[in-house]
Amino acid sequence: MSASPTPSRGAKRGRRPGAPDTRAAILDSARELFASGGFAGTSVRAVAAGAGVDPALVHHYFGSKDDLFVAALELPVDPRVIVAPALAEGPDGAGERMLRVILGVWDNDEHRLPLLAMARSILEPSGEQLIGRGFLPVVIEPLGEMLGIDHPDIRMPLFASQIVGLIMLRYLLEAEPLASMPVDDVVAAYAPTLQRYLTGDLGFLD
Amino acid sequence: MSASPTPSRGAKRGRRPGAPDTRAAILDSARELFASGGFAGTSVRAVAAGAGVDPALVHHYFGSKDDLFVAALELPVDPRVIVAPALAEGPDGAGERMLRVILGVWDNDEHRLPLLAMARSILEPSGEQLIGRGFLPVVIEPLGEMLGIDHPDIRMPLFASQIVGLIMLRYLLEAEPLASMPVDDVVAAYAPTLQRYLTGDLGFLD
Repeated sequence: MSASPTPSRGAKRGRRPGAPDTRAAILDSARELFASGGFAGTSVRAVAAGAGVDPALVHHYFGSKDDLFVAALELPVDPRVIVAPALAEGPDGAGERMLRVILGVWDNDEHRLPLLAMARSILEPSGEQLIGRGFLPVVIEPLGEMLGIDHPDIRMPLFASQIVGLIMLRYLLEAEPLASMPVDDVVAAYAPTLQRYLTGDLGFLD
Repeated sequence: MSASPTPSRGAKRGRRPGAPDTRAAILDSARELFASGGFAGTSVRAVAAGAGVDPALVHHYFGSKDDLFVAALELPVDPRVIVAPALAEGPDGAGERMLRVILGVWDNDEHRLPLLAMARSILEPSGEQLIGRGFLPVVIEPLGEMLGIDHPDIRMPLFASQIVGLIMLRYLLEAEPLASMPVDDVVAAYAPTLQRYLTGDLGFLD
């Protein structure tokens, strides 16, 4: 599962003069540091030092620290990219649109295995750092900001809590009837919940 | 963490003529078989054979197969017992009452560690059998039957999916703001969701 491509011919064997190994070394360093120190506790400078490269090279390959974090998670899709069209239409109905995007990704055979690996990592010791203090604030909360809702720092974790529970039962535990429930029924059951978390009266916000 | 009490005096050392070791052997056998074969795929007879005892002894120590299963999960509390008072008042407001019971158990320092161990087991290979095909249908769905709601086989898994997601974020990932949210705010946010799953219009039921 290395990020370095394996040359198909003997003639091309050996360490290449740049990109793939450097990129892989940066990712390895990032994964290790984010898992132990969390997103806030990890600097691009430290990731660069761990990989033995200049910080500028980290930005060159991966862009911002947020982007580096998402790359280190090794997701099959970038949530910020695939959810963007669902956000573009604004808060009305965003619960259903986002849910349909998420179900589409998880119901895709090609994506499910790497996503399951990430879901399992929630319960590893690094899960608190990587997900609780990384994925949620760095990737999920900004989606609420892009959507233009109030209190994204409160509403998006509520949204995430229902998505996480649904994913656990439908895809990890394969608990019936959720595991084989048609998408439209899942949407009928969950979209009102998600929409309320995004835009409804929660009873304790100003 | 053995079920056998450790004698405090040397004079009492050695295998006792019955109860503790037999009980522990039955539990060991039950845990192993439920984890590999699931609830439906495990018979009391097989558990007894695995422990080298008569099936009647299994019933003597543990009661029904359901009770044996709950004992094998080694929960700090029996969900059927602690939730019973919340069910007794009927479906109206049951979402909030059950949520308050669940939060009370999880916010109790003494209970949290063994519960976290069980929550982590969700993602182990045995999780699908133990939780998806055991805990949910054997322990959680009957709560819906006791409550007297329609479609407990559909409504209780929806209920469970929100509870699982809330527990993951609040107690396992310790994600803010959920980790330190006052109980009354958690109830304000989640009770309407849970009540709808228990008794509301889900949009796809007869």
